[in-house]
Amino acid sequence: MSKKIPYKIYLSEEELPTHWYNLRADMKNKPAPLLDPKTHKVMGYEDLRPVFCDELIKQELDDTTPYFEIPREIRDFYKMYRPAPLVRAYELEKKLNTPAHIYYKFEGNNTSGSHKLNSAIAQAYYAKNQGLKGVTTETGAGQWGTALSMACAYLGLDCKVFMVKCSYEQKPFRREVMRTYGASVTPSPSMETAVGREINERFPGTTGSLGCAISEAVEVASNTEGYRYVLGSVLNQVMLHQSIIGLEAKAALDKYNVKPDIIIGCAGGGSNLGGLIAPFMGEKIKGNADYRFIAVEPASCPSLSRGKYVYDYCDTGMVCPLSKMYTLGSGFIPAASHAGGLRYHGMNSTLSQLRYDGLMEATTVKQTEVFASAVEFAKCEGILPAPESSHAIHVAVNEALKCKETGEEKVILFGLTGTGYFDMVSYQKFNDGIMKDYLPTDEDLERGFASLPDMAENEVK
Amino acid sequence: MSKKIPYKIYLSEEELPTHWYNLRADMKNKPAPLLDPKTHKVMGYEDLRPVFCDELIKQELDDTTPYFEIPREIRDFYKMYRPAPLVRAYELEKKLNTPAHIYYKFEGNNTSGSHKLNSAIAQAYYAKNQGLKGVTTETGAGQWGTALSMACAYLGLDCKVFMVKCSYEQKPFRREVMRTYGASVTPSPSMETAVGREINERFPGTTGSLGCAISEAVEVASNTEGYRYVLGSVLNQVMLHQSIIGLEAKAALDKYNVKPDIIIGCAGGGSNLGGLIAPFMGEKIKGNADYRFIAVEPASCPSLSRGKYVYDYCDTGMVCPLSKMYTLGSGFIPAASHAGGLRYHGMNSTLSQLRYDGLMEATTVKQTEVFASAVEFAKCEGILPAPESSHAIHVAVNEALKCKETGEEKVILFGLTGTGYFDMVSYQKFNDGIMKDYLPTDEDLERGFASLPDMAENEVK
Repeated sequence: MSKKIPYKIYLSEEELPTHWYNLRADMKNKPAPLLDPKTHKVMGYEDLRPVFCDELIKQELDDTTPYFEIPREIRDFYKMYRPAPLVRAYELEKKLNTPAHIYYKFEGNNTSGSHKLNSAIAQAYYAKNQGLKGVTTETGAGQWGTALSMACAYLGLDCKVFMVKCSYEQKPFRREVMRTYGASVTPSPSMETAVGREINERFPGTTGSLGCAISEAVEVASNTEGYRYVLGSVLNQVMLHQSIIGLEAKAALDKYNVKPDIIIGCAGGGSNLGGLIAPFMGEKIKGNADYRFIAVEPASCPSLSRGKYVYDYCDTGMVCPLSKMYTLGSGFIPAASHAGGLRYHGMNSTLSQLRYDGLMEATTVKQTEVFASAVEFAKCEGILPAPESSHAIHVAVNEALKCKETGEEKVILFGLTGTGYFDMVSYQKFNDGIMKDYLPTDEDLERGFASLPDMAENEVK
Repeated sequence: MSKKIPYKIYLSEEELPTHWYNLRADMKNKPAPLLDPKTHKVMGYEDLRPVFCDELIKQELDDTTPYFEIPREIRDFYKMYRPAPLVRAYELEKKLNTPAHIYYKFEGNNTSGSHKLNSAIAQAYYAKNQGLKGVTTETGAGQWGTALSMACAYLGLDCKVFMVKCSYEQKPFRREVMRTYGASVTPSPSMETAVGREINERFPGTTGSLGCAISEAVEVASNTEGYRYVLGSVLNQVMLHQSIIGLEAKAALDKYNVKPDIIIGCAGGGSNLGGLIAPFMGEKIKGNADYRFIAVEPASCPSLSRGKYVYDYCDTGMVCPLSKMYTLGSGFIPAASHAGGLRYHGMNSTLSQLRYDGLMEATTVKQTEVFASAVEFAKCEGILPAPESSHAIHVAVNEALKCKETGEEKVILFGLTGTGYFDMVSYQKFNDGIMKDYLPTDEDLERGFASLPDMAENEVK
């Protein structure tokens, strides 16, 4: 007899995972290595040290160790807001009148408002352990910057944040949360860095992009004694830390012998999606189970869906390592959409490889339909979701409605990465009926692709 | 041997309380009855029906039934965000280097951002059950309005909110959350009601008060077919619903055989404080246990600390029933402080009676010291607290520091009623060093007392 499934499945503190899971160790086709942006040579530990923290480089480069122990200090921090609940969306199921069973892993119950804190505390911990004074970073929607500010405040590290200008303007209170936690926040592109000044000159009035903010943060880290650069998404170390999302979700489902059929996550740089699917994908690769994985992208920034799988710069200023990934080109500047966290031109290299190998699907959705689903979700499930997370909600709802047509009792799991409390300017536009959809034209895409590096690895064979 | 206490104690869904606790049933001195504002006669069920929902009037008037069953529909709604965690503040203890054990009941993990949802869903449920079309209400900080909007959206009820103007201006995004949930929001005093127009004329440029917003909401409910007025605090029915806070907190502590020495809550209208202390106070009254209770008020609006214990109007427009309570007078207009939820001239009548009987202490704190404690708390415990809740934090910290001096291992429990995500204008003022403290002068108090009703019950014997 199956146990009645509660509204929220909470693991106990003792069930908090003790190790992160490194999906790459189980992949047959490993993601391609990082290359030097100038020489195009494979980058090793020593090459990355001027920019990144030592221990994090080890995690970044390791594609053979399946599990990394989570240090006790990080586990203690996790205990303040984890294990995060796995929620059975009974009310949403009722409203949709679907036979599908819908679950979401909710990562918004902490002040950063998202899953970003999982990697922020890890990165800040390793920086502190290395004896550094501070870290620099970029933030899009502001969730990563808030998370890093919180982690740095907790550990007593300095924190300098470059915030994508369009979010900086849309979300003044995000900036204030970061300041409250003691961080400095600069709108990007700024006039404080060489790369920021150059971008401001080339694109006057630009509202910025994650790629550009990354370049600025890297430049400051490289030029400042005792500082390193940390990143909230895209890198494989981030996916490693975020695996705690999937590990907890899987443990919670296993408790009730529930096996998801479809696993859905929004995809910006890939941190939440990668973390959520990691242990499930590991099972699939090993042939122990089968799952359908869906990456949901905004139609305005469709790297997995419309991008090329090539080596590209991770940032607009071309100072970061080259990564092989699905990309729209580092010169692609997405429209000022309301999901700041999904405005990245590329995608994590592991997820890109999985997509290339046909292990994961990708789809795009328009922001107006995303907000419509967000409001419906808020009204029945209570939680006001972040625009980013709402991309996953929208596709989950669509899949549940398909089940209604076919009568199938599928189990759908999606990642509810965060809350929308700092996105009320966007909700206001939606409520007032003045939100628009922006789809890149073929010319926009061509302009982006024209910025791809000209190198042997990228030639069509 | 005592069990190791986790960072967060979560009750399971099965442990969710099935009944609310009505503290009045166990009180030796019952709170005084409500009186008609014109005739000064005791108000009964029929007298209250034009304004309030039938079932809620029964709860309001009942001071003998100790437990009310929580309807299944409300329990189902509760399950989306309850049981709420009881948190052991290990990191705060470490930072303060205190031998005290600090616990807080955290009510902020829902989109309303506070405990207000506990009573909102109950009141909306009874309104719906009575076949009403909608409800009207007031909101101060915006938390109650948000909570009621959420509850009404869930049940399909219309919701009209009058929002204290000073909060309406400080918190534009609060308004937008309510709109997202389908509510209409009007700044108070407005020109849409007779009482609003009168107050605007008498006090041009006023930033409003809860008492004034209540009058407007009552007026609209009385004049609109199929509508009733609901209230987020002050009334005893609200305290009844909020008893779930204390019941859960006590159950969680009992699991680990922990007995608090001091229980601390911020006090505006009394809903959170009353809910938190209810089951503990019941024990104290029955002589089964002893606890120290501390009500924390803003120095700018010190009803329990500097008010008179007399009959007074619950609202500025003098249309609501008269309640015997500690009050500054319904004509008292508090300074535009940053804790909008604590700007009420009176206090729940049950809490007033408890205070009068010497069963509870009251103290006042200044907002600049409150925000300083809030920021310190945020940095070590992660959660960015609401200004209202931070009043309790500040006194809990002070009590913990006293323990450090004396070496006592006291157990301190406080109510962390909500999060400060919509209070960033206030945090910004604090961060910029331009926040000021406002203390009412003797003249301010005298002006408030002059508005007290002239009636036999209020004469000094």
